[in-house]
Amino acid sequence: MMTEAKILRWRDLWVRRLNLGLEKAISGLADRQHQAIANLLSAMGHTILGGGKRLRALLTLAAAEAVGGKEAWAFPGALAVEMVHAYSLIHDDLPALDNDDLRRGRPTCHLVFGEATAILAGDALQSLAFETLAGASAKGDAGKCQEVAQAILILAKAVGPLGMAGGQAMDLALEGQNPDIPEVLSMEEKKTGCLLGACLAIGATLGGADPRNVSRLSEVGRQAGLAFQITDDLLNVSGDPSKMGKNVGTDAQSGKASATSVMGLAAAKKKAESLVDKTIGDIGLLGSEKLVWLMRSIVGRSS
Amino acid sequence: MMTEAKILRWRDLWVRRLNLGLEKAISGLADRQHQAIANLLSAMGHTILGGGKRLRALLTLAAAEAVGGKEAWAFPGALAVEMVHAYSLIHDDLPALDNDDLRRGRPTCHLVFGEATAILAGDALQSLAFETLAGASAKGDAGKCQEVAQAILILAKAVGPLGMAGGQAMDLALEGQNPDIPEVLSMEEKKTGCLLGACLAIGATLGGADPRNVSRLSEVGRQAGLAFQITDDLLNVSGDPSKMGKNVGTDAQSGKASATSVMGLAAAKKKAESLVDKTIGDIGLLGSEKLVWLMRSIVGRSS
Repeated sequence: MMTEAKILRWRDLWVRRLNLGLEKAISGLADRQHQAIANLLSAMGHTILGGGKRLRALLTLAAAEAVGGKEAWAFPGALAVEMVHAYSLIHDDLPALDNDDLRRGRPTCHLVFGEATAILAGDALQSLAFETLAGASAKGDAGKCQEVAQAILILAKAVGPLGMAGGQAMDLALEGQNPDIPEVLSMEEKKTGCLLGACLAIGATLGGADPRNVSRLSEVGRQAGLAFQITDDLLNVSGDPSKMGKNVGTDAQSGKASATSVMGLAAAKKKAESLVDKTIGDIGLLGSEKLVWLMRSIVGRSS
Repeated sequence: MMTEAKILRWRDLWVRRLNLGLEKAISGLADRQHQAIANLLSAMGHTILGGGKRLRALLTLAAAEAVGGKEAWAFPGALAVEMVHAYSLIHDDLPALDNDDLRRGRPTCHLVFGEATAILAGDALQSLAFETLAGASAKGDAGKCQEVAQAILILAKAVGPLGMAGGQAMDLALEGQNPDIPEVLSMEEKKTGCLLGACLAIGATLGGADPRNVSRLSEVGRQAGLAFQITDDLLNVSGDPSKMGKNVGTDAQSGKASATSVMGLAAAKKKAESLVDKTIGDIGLLGSEKLVWLMRSIVGRSS
């Protein structure tokens, strides 16, 4: 039985390792490069090294352990999901998309580095994510190779046109359109749910799980991702900007489709909580207290 | 000994197969999707299904055969390199970057679909490229799995911050800066050379070549890529816009660093030709007439 204190220590340990790994993967490349490339790497670092709860990475690691594998096997996957998450934040903040100027308490990437560099930084982070994952199999082990290839396939599908990117396209299309609840939830499941589902699936795959457990965890992760996005919508309405590090009230201002706008605050909150309860029920059989804790943190957070 | 006619028939056959493969990979996804996602897929198709010589894909296929493998093994790689190439065209044309309105004789993606969708379309094409390559190993064969993982690693590095994206960052930084020749050639080698080198390396890898041949071909491809970019610069100065399908004179107008601006027309042309001759000399041992033909086409083209 893991105490909360033990889980927090596990989390802090891995967050430290992740930050070091990300630092090495990005700033480590800048040595003896042209100024423009060092600048591009700085732009990438601005978003990905500027804090963050590393939820996606932690889910990936916890999923590997939950299926009987080692967190270390899933570490490249954990780095990769943080990189694609960071890429999506940079691009989503761009003037042409959500046009945000504040993220994690600091000015957004395009405000600091200019739009061109921000676009390229997002692009390069996506490339680096796949490089990081693919590099995990470079050490040889043929069995691991199949798992890595499968993990790459899962990630690519989760962030592609039928996943995260498609969800973002839907989000933009639904702005000011008065969509109904199923449409909004479908959009949020793609925009946020797909990547979160992929974190669990990638972790489980790299942890050596059989495909049935992988797809079960993937579905669970998607539910959790939807809960995450609904919570995001709630925080956009009623969150404390100083805790959140980003602007509030922006969804309403820009006519953005959100769970709160179509369902109302109370119903949205209830929906998020019931999704997480179901999620925890589903993963209960795996007996991973870390995963349960992470799932609860999705709805219980203030940023 | 292959006649020109035989090579052209080989090319036409594979271009047809590539176009079908790309069509299936993109438009094939649109079935029963939300309108916004179908629109995103249309934006992706606008660029990648709108023609193109498929040079990169053909280099990939020819490289596989040149090292004793089958073109069919390299087909997913050939599709993937065309997808990343298309992604880079969409993003490079954006207002914040090169701000072009014409590409392959048609209006650019952001003009037709809007900037937001164009940004997402480029993002999604990059994801789809890695999905396509990773999917190649889904069929099992453990030996092929190592090759696929290696090919993914090669592609990711070639388009990342130290490759294509970095080259584009350098290109933007050098605008109006009066860089010297080595700086411009270094920029062009990254911006264009890296991906072309990757085409040969990916083809060779999927074709089952040993790593020494893979890296030799990669180097050769980078040289060819530099020749390609120099030829691009020459065409930007003196090409026929109706043949090229894009605007001419734009490099000079925007103060872009180019081989022609730092070396002059004659020297640039000579440099491109000598690079291709050296390239052909280097690959001569492989005896691939298709590769030689493709290399020569790099400098001999009018678009």
